[in-house]
Amino acid sequence: MATFRIGLVGLGNMGTGHANYLIEGGIKGAELTAVTDVRPERLAEIAEQWGEHIHRFESPEEMFRSGTVDGVIICTPHYDHPAQAISAFEHGLHVLIEKPAGVYTRQVREMNEAAAKSGKVFGIMYNQRTNPLYAKLKDLISSGELGEVRRTNWIITDWYRTQSYYNSGGWRATWAGEGGGVLINQDPHQLDLWQWTTGMMPTRVRAFCQFGKHRDIEVENDVTAYVEYENGATGVFVTSTFESPGTNRFEVSGDRGKIVIENGKLTFWRLRTPESEFNANFKSGFGQPECWKFDIPIQHGGGQHKEITENWVSAIVNGTPLLAPGEEGIKGLTLSNAMLLSTWTDSWVDLPIDEDLFYEKLQEQIAKSDSAKKADHYETLSVKGTH
Amino acid sequence: MATFRIGLVGLGNMGTGHANYLIEGGIKGAELTAVTDVRPERLAEIAEQWGEHIHRFESPEEMFRSGTVDGVIICTPHYDHPAQAISAFEHGLHVLIEKPAGVYTRQVREMNEAAAKSGKVFGIMYNQRTNPLYAKLKDLISSGELGEVRRTNWIITDWYRTQSYYNSGGWRATWAGEGGGVLINQDPHQLDLWQWTTGMMPTRVRAFCQFGKHRDIEVENDVTAYVEYENGATGVFVTSTFESPGTNRFEVSGDRGKIVIENGKLTFWRLRTPESEFNANFKSGFGQPECWKFDIPIQHGGGQHKEITENWVSAIVNGTPLLAPGEEGIKGLTLSNAMLLSTWTDSWVDLPIDEDLFYEKLQEQIAKSDSAKKADHYETLSVKGTH
Repeated sequence: MATFRIGLVGLGNMGTGHANYLIEGGIKGAELTAVTDVRPERLAEIAEQWGEHIHRFESPEEMFRSGTVDGVIICTPHYDHPAQAISAFEHGLHVLIEKPAGVYTRQVREMNEAAAKSGKVFGIMYNQRTNPLYAKLKDLISSGELGEVRRTNWIITDWYRTQSYYNSGGWRATWAGEGGGVLINQDPHQLDLWQWTTGMMPTRVRAFCQFGKHRDIEVENDVTAYVEYENGATGVFVTSTFESPGTNRFEVSGDRGKIVIENGKLTFWRLRTPESEFNANFKSGFGQPECWKFDIPIQHGGGQHKEITENWVSAIVNGTPLLAPGEEGIKGLTLSNAMLLSTWTDSWVDLPIDEDLFYEKLQEQIAKSDSAKKADHYETLSVKGTH
Repeated sequence: MATFRIGLVGLGNMGTGHANYLIEGGIKGAELTAVTDVRPERLAEIAEQWGEHIHRFESPEEMFRSGTVDGVIICTPHYDHPAQAISAFEHGLHVLIEKPAGVYTRQVREMNEAAAKSGKVFGIMYNQRTNPLYAKLKDLISSGELGEVRRTNWIITDWYRTQSYYNSGGWRATWAGEGGGVLINQDPHQLDLWQWTTGMMPTRVRAFCQFGKHRDIEVENDVTAYVEYENGATGVFVTSTFESPGTNRFEVSGDRGKIVIENGKLTFWRLRTPESEFNANFKSGFGQPECWKFDIPIQHGGGQHKEITENWVSAIVNGTPLLAPGEEGIKGLTLSNAMLLSTWTDSWVDLPIDEDLFYEKLQEQIAKSDSAKKADHYETLSVKGTH
């Protein structure tokens, strides 16, 4: 078949990264044919760097209806993802969006509905799903090697960000500009992997977000969340941006032992007999199941962004199953929204969350925020009109 | 001066352990002169094993007024510690109690008041304070090496207990018999060390206890607690009795880096520049303080129970400062009570806790408990009349 023609929406850091491997011919059977960015000067640079043959548009709509692309990768600010994806679907295009799927679940649900209606292939750039560590964890859990999951515990505090980082753009770490802090900006992958690897979404969440801690910002940069799952298991998620060197340690314990991913290594303490069986049969006072500790072999590499794009193209061209279906973006976002909502209401949040209540609370934050004004003085054009 | 005469209250596992090193002359300048136990057959065994010269009493009161002892070590069930200690103080005796200090803070506060009034030396068997790992952590924090504490995180899930363990005594894991589960029985040391090493008690607690999880018991055996401290730091404490092999990992992060105690090792990731200073001066987008990773040398050993007894005797005889003052027992118990109370009220608990409310809620548990009756069929004499 003919080459699959890709358009890029947004030429910031991520968009430029995708352009680079596409231009080098990194994705077999696909090519970059068009780009769109709200900044004319950025488009001019592109023409000079990559050549005039790549079509350039000043708005996504123009590109969507131009007939120059078969599918688009959306790499704009968070708030814009859903509206742009919906528009692309309406123009009969396949869509791959950058994470997060959006800022609030209502807009993301609408995007998912548009995707379903269009019948087009919808992917999300959850490139960490290609990380062999997490792929192996998912394998060990879904194949039953770990037994039924009893606890999850992710400490992900190695997102160190300085005040100068936050000051580098007026939209950064504002409710108006980004719609949140560490959860929406740094943790989308972990919030995806947390439920993707275990195959379990919580049934309720009680979380404690702190805002502007050790930093002059308005959004959350310190979060502790407690969750409960349908099978009775519990979980903890701890994240921050002010700890150095921080920690990235994901522990999952189950009926057959425990697994810890830390320092780029996956360690499996595996019980010879499942705990539940041992407990049922043991008759003495103290004792526990025989436990074998393994360092599980992990392939190096993982294709990351390029592999996700490749997989998306292959899903369109060959019908390959998607590694990261776009519809799943709502899961991680639901967790992130639930953590904020639990903090704002100082109470439990049952899942699925009340999407209207979250939206309303988010608007309150935006309304009372000083930086809603401050953000206007910076490069936030692409955010306007989306909320 | 004359030899310091010690009496033991309760000759169960712990009491017998203390007796063994005392009889061997393990504590210089002190000797075991009397014992008391509610079981005549246990006293008869003692006479045969250790000789008739050790005075034997069927009740603590008799021993306290006998003039045969200068101080007593109380090793009875949890509920009895405060009443017996108060009585001992009233008889002008020095007291060393086993942990926990008691089951509810009201009784423990009364015990502390009696101790203060008596002017006698009051210690508690927090033998883990002699563990060089935790002593070193306290040193690194109190000396400022770690900088201001920003987060504590203790995962202590390696208290594996089988159903057969719980079935081994009718009083076990009941509200009437023990007054709680993993918090009061397995975690007293961690609840002590958590605040002793950091020098910080939380200001409020939100906790999630689960009762009889994977086990047929009525008390809590799965706990996740979130705490906040006065300086803005937060903390997490996770504990259970059904996970195998479980985890014992204590992480403290501060302005100068982080410390992790795990697998009998203390590792210090130390920042060359404090984070707050680095953040104040850094001007670029991404960057973080230079970090040096150290394995901190730890002396092996630690005198454990014997060292605590030795220290208590030395405090009495020579005025040595106590390593574990009895009055501090209320701190760990406050944390444990707060976690249960937060669960029962499904809300925040501010510290110091409402001791009457906790007592009332505990009585409700005891009243509605089947095992309040069941426990009567077992060896629970020593628990009666204390609540």
